[in-house]
Parts: sequence; structure tokens; C-alpha cells
Amino acid sequence: MPMDLFIAPVVGIVSLIVVAFVSWLVLKEDQGTKRMREIASYIQEGANAFMKREFTTIAYFIVILAILLYFIGWQISVGFVIGAVCSLIAAYVGMSIAVRANVRTSNAARMSAEKALKIAFLGGSVTGLSIVGISLVGVGGLFLLFNRDPSLVVGFGFGASLAALFAQLGGGIYTKAADVGADLVGKVEQKIPEDDPRNPAVIADQVGDNVGDCAGRGADLFESFSDNIIGIMILGAAFASILGAKYITYPLVAESIGVIGVIIGVLTFRPGKNPMRSIYMSFAIATIVSLIGFYWLGAYYMNDIMLFYTSTLGVVTSFIIALIILYYTGNHKPVIEIARASQSGAAINLIYGLAYGLESSVLPTIVVGIVIGISYLIAGGGIRGIYGIASAAAGILSTTGIIMAADTFGPISDNADGIAEMAGISDEVSDKTEVLDAAGNVTKAVTKGYAMACASITSIVLLFAFIVEAGVKYLGIGVNELDGLLKGFIIDSPEAPRLMAYIFEPTVIIPLFIGATVPFLFSSMAIKAVGKTAFQMVEEVRRQFREIKGLLEGKAKPDYARAVDISTKNALREMVAPTLLGLLSPVIIGLIFGVRGMMAYLVGVTVIAVLLALFMYNVGGAWDNAKKYIEAGNFGGKGTEAHAASVIGDTVGDPLKDTAGPSLHILIKLQNIIAITLLPIFILYALIA
Amino acid sequence: MPMDLFIAPVVGIVSLIVVAFVSWLVLKEDQGTKRMREIASYIQEGANAFMKREFTTIAYFIVILAILLYFIGWQISVGFVIGAVCSLIAAYVGMSIAVRANVRTSNAARMSAEKALKIAFLGGSVTGLSIVGISLVGVGGLFLLFNRDPSLVVGFGFGASLAALFAQLGGGIYTKAADVGADLVGKVEQKIPEDDPRNPAVIADQVGDNVGDCAGRGADLFESFSDNIIGIMILGAAFASILGAKYITYPLVAESIGVIGVIIGVLTFRPGKNPMRSIYMSFAIATIVSLIGFYWLGAYYMNDIMLFYTSTLGVVTSFIIALIILYYTGNHKPVIEIARASQSGAAINLIYGLAYGLESSVLPTIVVGIVIGISYLIAGGGIRGIYGIASAAAGILSTTGIIMAADTFGPISDNADGIAEMAGISDEVSDKTEVLDAAGNVTKAVTKGYAMACASITSIVLLFAFIVEAGVKYLGIGVNELDGLLKGFIIDSPEAPRLMAYIFEPTVIIPLFIGATVPFLFSSMAIKAVGKTAFQMVEEVRRQFREIKGLLEGKAKPDYARAVDISTKNALREMVAPTLLGLLSPVIIGLIFGVRGMMAYLVGVTVIAVLLALFMYNVGGAWDNAKKYIEAGNFGGKGTEAHAASVIGDTVGDPLKDTAGPSLHILIKLQNIIAITLLPIFILYALIA
Repeated sequence: MPMDLFIAPVVGIVSLIVVAFVSWLVLKEDQGTKRMREIASYIQEGANAFMKREFTTIAYFIVILAILLYFIGWQISVGFVIGAVCSLIAAYVGMSIAVRANVRTSNAARMSAEKALKIAFLGGSVTGLSIVGISLVGVGGLFLLFNRDPSLVVGFGFGASLAALFAQLGGGIYTKAADVGADLVGKVEQKIPEDDPRNPAVIADQVGDNVGDCAGRGADLFESFSDNIIGIMILGAAFASILGAKYITYPLVAESIGVIGVIIGVLTFRPGKNPMRSIYMSFAIATIVSLIGFYWLGAYYMNDIMLFYTSTLGVVTSFIIALIILYYTGNHKPVIEIARASQSGAAINLIYGLAYGLESSVLPTIVVGIVIGISYLIAGGGIRGIYGIASAAAGILSTTGIIMAADTFGPISDNADGIAEMAGISDEVSDKTEVLDAAGNVTKAVTKGYAMACASITSIVLLFAFIVEAGVKYLGIGVNELDGLLKGFIIDSPEAPRLMAYIFEPTVIIPLFIGATVPFLFSSMAIKAVGKTAFQMVEEVRRQFREIKGLLEGKAKPDYARAVDISTKNALREMVAPTLLGLLSPVIIGLIFGVRGMMAYLVGVTVIAVLLALFMYNVGGAWDNAKKYIEAGNFGGKGTEAHAASVIGDTVGDPLKDTAGPSLHILIKLQNIIAITLLPIFILYALIA
Repeated sequence: MPMDLFIAPVVGIVSLIVVAFVSWLVLKEDQGTKRMREIASYIQEGANAFMKREFTTIAYFIVILAILLYFIGWQISVGFVIGAVCSLIAAYVGMSIAVRANVRTSNAARMSAEKALKIAFLGGSVTGLSIVGISLVGVGGLFLLFNRDPSLVVGFGFGASLAALFAQLGGGIYTKAADVGADLVGKVEQKIPEDDPRNPAVIADQVGDNVGDCAGRGADLFESFSDNIIGIMILGAAFASILGAKYITYPLVAESIGVIGVIIGVLTFRPGKNPMRSIYMSFAIATIVSLIGFYWLGAYYMNDIMLFYTSTLGVVTSFIIALIILYYTGNHKPVIEIARASQSGAAINLIYGLAYGLESSVLPTIVVGIVIGISYLIAGGGIRGIYGIASAAAGILSTTGIIMAADTFGPISDNADGIAEMAGISDEVSDKTEVLDAAGNVTKAVTKGYAMACASITSIVLLFAFIVEAGVKYLGIGVNELDGLLKGFIIDSPEAPRLMAYIFEPTVIIPLFIGATVPFLFSSMAIKAVGKTAFQMVEEVRRQFREIKGLLEGKAKPDYARAVDISTKNALREMVAPTLLGLLSPVIIGLIFGVRGMMAYLVGVTVIAVLLALFMYNVGGAWDNAKKYIEAGNFGGKGTEAHAASVIGDTVGDPLKDTAGPSLHILIKLQNIIAITLLPIFILYALIA
């Protein structure tokens, strides 16, 4: 089946060619006035400096881990390095274009709104297509190189996870510390507008949008996309004796189809008056192409229509979750209630926000649970049922490219608006760039919901892959036996309580509880890192306003570099401890409690992290939009006590929604992929001990 | 073994006699000036009115549920009614004395600090001894009446759980809405002191302290104490063929010994200059008496020294958890850092608080996990191991009475300080009442940590009881087989992955996820209820300041009754929906997913709720004390921007620490006790369906 094997690298390379073409389309545009170029160059320099130093820090980890992983197998070690490097390249390429598309979008807005929209969206597409393209080339290529044994490709997933954790944590701490620092002193204390060039933290804030939203979320989705393919391939390989060899390469083909859909969606993008409508249209085209491809894949190529049903269910699920997220973070009842509560002060705003945030985690989690159940049933239970769940995950991930394009559109538009403000051309263009910025905020909210759906479902696929790999490959359960076991589970048969007795064991219950604490500790570290850095940023910005004479009057220039430096240094320092937590806890648990304890640990981490991440995303989004709702003139509008209260809510939400929340996703995937990668060690150790 | 059977009712009755004696000691004291009596009568009326209406609302639920439970068995139905009524009586007796001890404490402070301390502590002891006394009489009595079959006593536990949920939710919503409303308008907007008689919400606030901290926490601990005995008795009955019949009544004897310790601790209480020292001394006496009793019980009576080791481990655990809670909520690094962060505004204060709050859940949870593991190992694994875990739980619960005495000491002292302020005698006594109030805040913080340890360990005992009851009683696993199964679990034997395959099943994974969402939804409802009520309270208090002429100048009286009415009505209305959630979800899950799904559901609820409750307790406590730390003159002290920021943090923490957090404890226990009570229905239904 040569098509199975070569389609992924080929589609990957095609998508990279499209990346080159789209980049050329963006870069050939004019950068505008000298002042605009100057501001854009500050942002580019800041972003480059951060990425360079981030790469150096990651390099140490890569080298040490590559050496350690060599003892499991050279393929794991090589795959690990390639996975990490590919993730960094994908993020770097995407961000490099994003920090160039911003000023061009700003300049294009001087001519026409449509042109600005086109540049911003195409700029975003570079990130989207780079991620899925490089992932297909990497995963597909290594699978070919490593004798078509997916267990050897897990190194790639581990590398992608590690790079993602750094990118999301580092980027998240950077962007939110800058944002909070800029807002607290600029908007609240000095009462100057957002993105005002007098604010010393304004460049750091702009850089942060790129390193956080673009590079950070890009690395997150690169990881979900890659890990998901690898996880399904492992399940396919374990089940091949019953299902057939085609099920190993199925995810490569399915995701290649998804990427073809995305390429067509990007190339047929037509900018219109309403940016959201244009983006939705492009998204619809990509989805329809994918679904047609899935139908062909299920009905004809795989000859198993279940795969079409389950992958379609996956696509539908991502819509449903996005709608739920939009309800909780858009201008609907929760946001309006939070805004209304702001009239009684910041405390009531925060109490309402926390209440709605907690509530908002409920429905998406139940949806994920139900989708798992339905896919299992559609596929007929047993090991086919497990594969059906995996196929639904493949469906969710298929639109990753276009989602990421829409996501990166956010920081580009945000930057374009900021550059216009700083370059003094906002009178001319602000009506156009603000519309883009508003659309960018919607796409950012939706893509966060999507990223969370991807991360949870990918973690569950990885958890299954871990259990199957442990059972079938190392501990000698036959696949037929497993299938029979699963199908034989009749509700409340005498077998049930025997299995239930399992939970009593300290080697199960202790790791379950410890697993549950890890997301709490990890989020605490991430949030505290933002708090600390923001505290320093606030002091520095206050100092500049105090010591630089004429700054507030616009007669003197602020020292942007100092603010950039505070964010950079702190982000790099603060991302190390949570990363070590993520790396070391599963190793320690696996060595002490063995494979079974590891599973309980993974269940604990996954369940808690999914809910906590949803809470953090949504509560931050809701506070943000409650503030915007008031700024739009409701409940008294700007300058009122209610507005001041809503700004506090928004600021509190920042590290939750953009640092801890997204990093938690990566944490879950990392825990699962480490468990799979180190499985041979845990087994060996348990046999010796 | 008549002693086994009669010791619990006898010790229970003795402790109620001590309650009568101590109440007489308190009530014979003088109530002070006319104005003091008047204020105290307002508080008594408000508290009585609330309890009366709360009882009416609960009565409907009791009647309906008693009828439904009758179909499972008349003993369940009768036990349910008795359990609910006993819980209400215990809470009512404790609170009636607390609202009378407050004014007497205030008046005694005019003479001597020691006398005031004595009245406040003895007043609190009434609640402590009522709870454990009534529980021993109820559980021990029903066990005798119902043919010594502990499975028939679960109705009592269910009744206690339901009453506790109402008391804690209703009391929690009441107290925090009043507190937030009083503070936001009084302290923040009008800049008048706390407990100022001009504040229209001040009486509601004082009533709230009693219905929340005293009646609410009392019902919580009544439930933990009763459920824990019942859970261990069920395990003992299931294991009796191997362990012996004495293990059924062991918890009754162990807790009776604990209560004897508490009685001696209370009666030997000697007030000194340092209130905390006196309370600790009384606590130490109670603990030492218990430990001596446990040694006799393990070494001689049960002839099984393991029980002494594990119950001692339980006692030590409650100390360790209290110390961790004190670290996070006392004047140590976290609180000081949060206070320092307040200098950069409310948002940074909140960010730091959230970070430390999340962190604070980690260690106590790991401690609970480790204690489970150690008790299992000390007892030698297998079903003895399970019983060892239960015995550790019995150890933790043994000091309930004295802990509850110290807890109720909190609202009495708080009220005493408030009454002094309102009655205009604060110049005379404030140095003494403020010392008491500060000590009360420490005991409240410690007892919250203790209540959480009790609730988590009790839930785990109940979960075990559920599994054992399902397996041994209904699904035909022999106890010897279960013992063998548990002992045969060798880490990573081929059995392990077979058991792991269990998690794949949709009937396991879906209820696990749904279970995890319930604490989120439940907390959301509780927090929103406080937000809503506080919003109304703020509007009402603002209205009174605006419309009642001369109020701020002290020339006119506020309309206290309106504020009391808002809290009462809202608390009663808002407690219904979360109660229904707690009652209906386990029923629905059990009917759809059967016994095995129920177990996954219970694991999901328990793990999430334990962590979430710890977070909410501690974050609220830390914000509260950060504010107090600033008020003590640090970082600029009262009246600064930092202080204003810390007040916002404190207010946000209120519904978390006093409404949602404590109610979550009751939710976990309720879910587990419903699962056990309805087990025959779930089994029957699964057989039919």
C-alpha cells in the first residue's frame, strides 16, 4: 500500500510549498511609513530575541533528554530531537511571518478593509499550514524510516510535547506579564489608551501576542496533531491482527485529507466586508472537502463506513464545543451578568466570573464523555470500539490547519491595530483595524475551545495507546482476549465487582490522588510566574513614568527594551520549574507504582486538567468580554466604577486563560506521551524490583 | 458482647448530660446592659427565624424522600427521618446556646478576659458535645433496634447528609451574602468600621456567623462522624467471617472512647491569659485520653494492635493537615506574599491568591493518599488492609467533639466583639474581645482543615463500603476470594492490564467524567447564589443609606429586618437547586450505568471535590488573612490602596471558603451514602434491564 505510506510526506511537502507561496504573497506587500517600519522592527527584534533565548534554554533539555532516551532505543532519541526541532521550526516560521504580516495589514488598511483582512488571514495561514505540513512530513517520514513501527515514532511525540510545553509556558508568561503590566499602569493608573506609544510596556505587549498566541498555541496544536496520529497508529498496530494493517496508517491518510481540505480552504479565501463571514466560509470549504474525503476513505478505501461516521462525529463535536465556549465567553447571558455585577464592584464581578467559569467546564466535559461513548457504540464495542473513539479524535484534529490560521489571525490583527495606534495613523485606519481586531478576539476564543477539545481527546487516545501497548506488547494479553474481555463486560456481571476491587489497592489510589494534584501545582506555578513577572513589570513601568521626564506628555521616549527584557528573562527562568514537574512526576510514579499505578496517575491528571483548563480558559474569556461589553457603552461604559471593576476581572483572568489554561493541555499530553515512551523502562524496572 | 452494643448510646447520653450542665453554666451568666440584651435578641430572633424556615423547607424533602425510601425498606425510611431530625436537633441545640453565649461573653469581658474565654469555649462545647452525643445515641441505638445489621442503618447517614447539605448551603449562602453586603457598602463605600450599628446588614452578618459557622459546620461534622461509623460497620459486617464480629462494633467503641476524651477535655478546660494555649491544652487532654483508650482497645479488647497504630496514624494525620492549612492561611510566606502583591492592586493580589490557593491543595491531598497507603500496609494488605484504612479514619474522627467546640468558639467570640461594638462598650472590653476574636479566627481555619480531612477520609471509607457491599452482598464474591484477589495483585502481573482494560468501557469512562463535572457545577451554583444575594444586599444597604435620613450620622436607625429577610429568603430559595443536583445525579447515573459506572462516578466526584474544596477553603482563608496582615499595619496598613485591594480579595474568597468549599464536603459524602442506600435498587434495575 504505497499510498498509505507516502501520502503524508507528500501532502506535507505540498502544504509547505503553499506556505512558501502564501508567505511570498504576504511579504511582497508594502510596510507603510518609516514610523510603522520602525515599530514593526521593534516587535520583530523582541520576538526574535525571545525565541532565540528560548531555543537556547530548550537546547539544554533536548541534549540531556536525547542522551537519556538513547538507552531506550536510538530511534526514540533521534525521533525526540526531530520532534522538538520540527515543533520549534513550525512555531518559528509561523511567527516570523506573523510579525511581518502585522505591519503590512496595518498599511493595507489605509487602502481597503478587504486587503487588510486578506493579509492578516494569509499571514495566519502560514502558521496553520506550517504546523500540519511539518507534522505530516515528520511523523510520516519517521514511520517510513523506522520500519513502519509506530512505537518507535513516540520519540517524535515526546519531542513535540516538550517543545510545546516550553513554548506555551514561556510565551504565556511573557505575554501576560507584559499585558498585565502595560494595562495596570497604563490604562488604570495613568489613564492612557491601550497600545499608547508612551507606555514603556507596549512593545513587550505586542511581542507577547506573537510569542504567546501564535508560537505558543502553534506548538500546542502541532503536538496534538502529531501525538494524535502517533497514538492512533499505536492502537492500529496492536489491533492489526484483527482489524488489518490498513488501520495502522489510517490516521496518516485521514489527516492528509484534512490538510488537503485546509489548503483548498486557504487558497479559496475571499475577503469580504464581514471578516468573520469570510473566515467561516473558508472554514466551511475546508470542512466539506475533508468530509467528502472521509466518506471516500471510509466507504471505499478502508471499506469500513464506521470510520466515516466516527470521524464526522469528531468534526461535529468540535463545532458543539466551540458553540458552548462562545456561549460562555461571547456576549450572552454569562458575560452580560458578569458585566452587570461589575456595578457592585470588582469583588462581585469576580464572584460571578468564578461561578460562570466553574459552570462552563461542565457541558464540554460531558460532551467529550458522550462522544467517547457514542463512538464506542457506533464501532460495535470491543477493540473496534476503542478504534472508533480514536477515529473520532482523528476527525476533530482534521481541521487543525484552518483553525490555527484563524487563531494566528488574532495576534496579527491585534498587532495591526496596535501599530496603527503607535504610528499615529489610527485616525485613518482604526475603523478597519478595530473590526479585524474584534474578529480576531472571536477566533481566538473559538480556537481555545478547539485546542482544549483536541488536547482532551488526544490525551484519551494516548491513554488508550499506553494501556494497549502495556497489555498487548509487554504483558502478554492477546488482542483476541482483550476484545473478548471488553465485549464480555456486561453491566453488573459478577466480573464487575472483581474489577472494582482494583481501586482499593494503594498502588492505584495513591497515584490517582497524586495525579490529581499535579495540574493544581502546575497551574499554581504558571500563575505565580505571571504574578511575579507582572509585579516587576508594574514597578518598572511606574519607575519610567516617574523618572523619565516628559514621558506622559509625549516629549520623551520610554525605554521599551527594559520592559522586553523583564518579560524575556522571567519567562525563561519561570518556565523551568513547571517543566521539570511535568517531566519528573510521571517518571517517579512509573518507577514506584509500576504500570497499573501509572494508569491511575494518568486518569487523575487527565480528568482534573481537562476541567481545570476549561475553567481557566472560559473564566478569563468571560471576564475579558465583560470588560469589552462595558467598554461598548453598557452599564455606564468607560470611565465608570463598573468599568474599573471589570478591568480587574479581566486582568485576573489573563494568566488563567493565556498561561495556565493552555499549558495544562500540553501537560496532559506530555504526561501520557512520557508514559508511553518510558513504558519499556517501567516494565523492566518492575521485573527487576 | 454487651459492652460493644451499649457503650455508644451510654456515652452518648452521658455527653448530653454534660451538654445540659455546660449549658446551665453558660446561661446562668449575666447578659449585661439593656442595649446588649436588645442586640443579642435581634441576633437570636434572626437566627431562630432562619432555622425555623429552613426546617420547614427541609421537612418537605424529608417527607417525600422518606416515602420513596420506604420501598427499599422501612428501616431505611425510619433511619433516614431520624438521621435528618437528629442532625437538625444537634445543630439547633448548639446554635441556641451559641447565640446566648455571645452576649454573655461580651459582658464577662467587662470583668475578666479569662471569664469571657471560659464562657465562649463552654458555649462552643455545647455544639461539640451535642453533635457527637446525639450521633452516638442515634447510630448506636438504631444498630441495636435494627437487629445489629449496619446496612439498615445507612438511612440514618443519608438523613444526616441531606440535613447537612441544607444547613451548610443555606447557612453558607446566608452568612456570606450578609457579610459581603455589609462590608462592600459599610467598610468600602461608607468607610464605617466593621460591626458598626449604623450598617443595616450588621445584624444579618452576626446571625450569619451562627447559622453558617456553627449550625453549618456542626451538621457537616455530625454527618462525617455518623457516616464514618456506619461505613466502618458495613465493612466490618462484610469482613466478619474472616476478621470476627468485634470488627463490626469497633467504630462504635472507638468513637465512644474519643467522646469520653472530649468530655474530659471540656470539663478540665482552664482559661488562661493566652486563649489559644488554653484551647490547645484542652485539645491535648482529649487527644491523650483517646490515645490511651485506643491503646487499651487495640492491645487488650480487640487483641489487634494494628488498630492502635492505624487510629493513631489517623490522629497524627489530622495534626499534619491542620499544620499545612495553617501554613497556607496563617501569617506565613503565602499570606505575606499575597499582602505584598496587594501593593500593585487588586488584580495582582487575586492572581497571587489563586496561585497559592491552587498550590495549597497539593500537600493535604498527597498526605491523605500516603496515609491510605501506609494504613493498608501496616494492616498487612488484603481485606485487613482495607479495614486498616477505615481504622485510620476512625482515628481522625475521634476528636470531632473538641474540634467542633473550638470551631463554635469562633462565631461566639466574633459575635461577642460585634455586640460590644454595637452596644457602645467596646472602649471598655475591645482589648479582651479582640484577642478572643483573633483566636476564634485561628480555630476556624484549623477546623476547616480538619473538616476537610474528615470529609475526604469518610468519603473513601464510604466508597469502600459501597464496593464491598455491592461485591460481597449482591454480586456473590466471597470475602476470602476478595482477600485473595487483593493480596494477589502483584505490581505488573499479567492480571494488571486485564484490570486496566476496565477503564476503556464507556460505562466507566462516561460516569467518571460526569462525576468530575458535578463538583464544578455544584460550586458554581453555590457561588452564584452568594453573588446574587450579595448583589441584592448591596442594593438594599445602599438604598437605606440613601433614603433613611440621618442614618450615617447615627441619628436614625437602620431597618435590620429587611437585610435579615433578604438573606433568609435567598438562602432558602438558592439551596434547593444544588440539593436537587446532589440528590438526582447519583440516582440517574446508577440507573443508567449500573454499579460499576456508579463507582467510576464516585471516584470522579471524590477526587475533584477534595481538591476543589481545599483550594476554596485555603484561598479564601489566605485572602482573609492577607487583609488582616495589612490591617495590622504592614505594607502601609489600613486606608491605603493596598488595603483596598486586599479587601476585594477577601470578599471574593468569602463564598469560596464559607459556602462552596464546605458544601462540597457534604456533597461527596452525600453522593457516597446515596450510592450505598440505593444499591439494592441499582442491582434490581440492572437485573431487569
